Amino acid sequence: MSILVVGSVALDTVKTPFGRCKDILGGSATYFSVSASFFEPNVNLVAVVGNDFPPKYVNLLKEKGIDLKGMVTKKGKTFRWEGEYGWDFSNPETIATHLNVLSRFNPAIPREYRNSEYVFLANIDPQIQKQVLNQMARPKLVACDTMNYWIENKRKALVKLLKKVDIFLLNESEAKELAGDASLVKAARAILKLGPKKIIVKKGEHGSLLFSGNSVFSTPAYLMESIFDPTGAGDTFAGGVLGYLAACKTQNQANLRRAIVYGSVMATFAVEDFSLRRLAAITRADVVRRFKEFRKLTHF
Amino acid sequence: MSILVVGSVALDTVKTPFGRCKDILGGSATYFSVSASFFEPNVNLVAVVGNDFPPKYVNLLKEKGIDLKGMVTKKGKTFRWEGEYGWDFSNPETIATHLNVLSRFNPAIPREYRNSEYVFLANIDPQIQKQVLNQMARPKLVACDTMNYWIENKRKALVKLLKKVDIFLLNESEAKELAGDASLVKAARAILKLGPKKIIVKKGEHGSLLFSGNSVFSTPAYLMESIFDPTGAGDTFAGGVLGYLAACKTQNQANLRRAIVYGSVMATFAVEDFSLRRLAAITRADVVRRFKEFRKLTHF
Repeated sequence: MSILVVGSVALDTVKTPFGRCKDILGGSATYFSVSASFFEPNVNLVAVVGNDFPPKYVNLLKEKGIDLKGMVTKKGKTFRWEGEYGWDFSNPETIATHLNVLSRFNPAIPREYRNSEYVFLANIDPQIQKQVLNQMARPKLVACDTMNYWIENKRKALVKLLKKVDIFLLNESEAKELAGDASLVKAARAILKLGPKKIIVKKGEHGSLLFSGNSVFSTPAYLMESIFDPTGAGDTFAGGVLGYLAACKTQNQANLRRAIVYGSVMATFAVEDFSLRRLAAITRADVVRRFKEFRKLTHF
Repeated sequence: MSILVVGSVALDTVKTPFGRCKDILGGSATYFSVSASFFEPNVNLVAVVGNDFPPKYVNLLKEKGIDLKGMVTKKGKTFRWEGEYGWDFSNPETIATHLNVLSRFNPAIPREYRNSEYVFLANIDPQIQKQVLNQMARPKLVACDTMNYWIENKRKALVKLLKKVDIFLLNESEAKELAGDASLVKAARAILKLGPKKIIVKKGEHGSLLFSGNSVFSTPAYLMESIFDPTGAGDTFAGGVLGYLAACKTQNQANLRRAIVYGSVMATFAVEDFSLRRLAAITRADVVRRFKEFRKLTHF
């Protein structure tokens, strides 16, 4: 099996109550791919960086075994995002967004990647997400993420894309906004009717929900004593979900549920330090240990 | 086994986006006792009502098999609470509180109740909660609830009481306020040090947490399509927890976890209609069915 992710590779400047870090490795494709690499060795990354992108970050991704043929270097600066979190860590305040080379991102999928069985379309313009899909042969599973900006400004393109999507990941407020319904259950049902086979609603510190057909799976979050930097948690979660699914090949309900728990587990590592510091330092054994703790925490 | 509950029996006036009901049956002891009666036939209620308390409500409690020897009728009006919920249903706005006969509530525990093995001290002045405990013989399990008002105004009495408590139920913001810590995990650990053997943190639509020693149990809420009136959900939850524990006699971790899920299940019925309308109409089979659905919803 192989996984393709198309998204951003970024240099983030993040301020939290614990400190501030400048130009640290970030981006949806980065978090996703490192997370997925714990489960599936063949992770193909498509993104664009500027010629200021530090070689040490390239090396970090290479050491995780991520295939970077699809990571193109363009003349100019790498995409930069600057944000600040308060004590509640729920929504960061965006201080600055400099798209730089990302503003001309028009991903060409390398020939070797077109047979990837698992595809993750990270949060980018749904029209570009669609163009990516058009270049793929016959993916076994397509998952996509989005954000309120696209719901508000590219709704038509997003709804069109959803018909081609197996797993649609979004957060609680996005689900309610997309469906125009304050009841999350009703909103999820309405979104399922738009086409995606399954929806995963991310609720941050309150866990996540999987809606598929008439079945629902609800899981709390792993209990964290403290959060250090929540940047990338959602993409790390998605990396765990798709990585695990790719590794176990069949997508029955039991595997899907475990995939979501593995996604939650990966996200807990992401938020324990700035950037990918903790995520890049853990071992597969750490992941399995926390998965087992998660079961102990929730089963009755 | 028998359960004693000491708390309020009230006439509530509740407004929600779905309508307004005046002088309907409410009160912590009411919700608790009806909920507990589904598991344990011997539920003893200690409360005070005025001579305006409608006989139909007395009959409702009697039909559920609740022992009312401890429900004293005093000259004057029954305790009244008036509140209004918005669409998010999280915190009601209190429009009016008329303590009436409750202002002179000084519960005398009938001799026949003093051997009750399970005691629930609903949300009242912690000094009165302590006085109740002093009248009891040797309860097997003492649980208590509180509210931000007592944390702020009767902190010393509350902390003293907690040393005698086996299960302390409180909501997330109360836990953080009592411990003075924004991290719920740290707050829970600090509260455990004050004396209670176990803490149950109620998180409403986000489920609940059980802290005991080094063990934690986390459960999401049952998924509700819509909520009608959340009044009494917390006391109904407590009734399910203590009712189930009393029925299964031993309090090991497995029973405690199931008790919490039964508590959550009972609360879902409470919020499906105004007052105790739905709660009083369901059968034991409805409860068991929803418990099984809860397991399906959460296990992986």
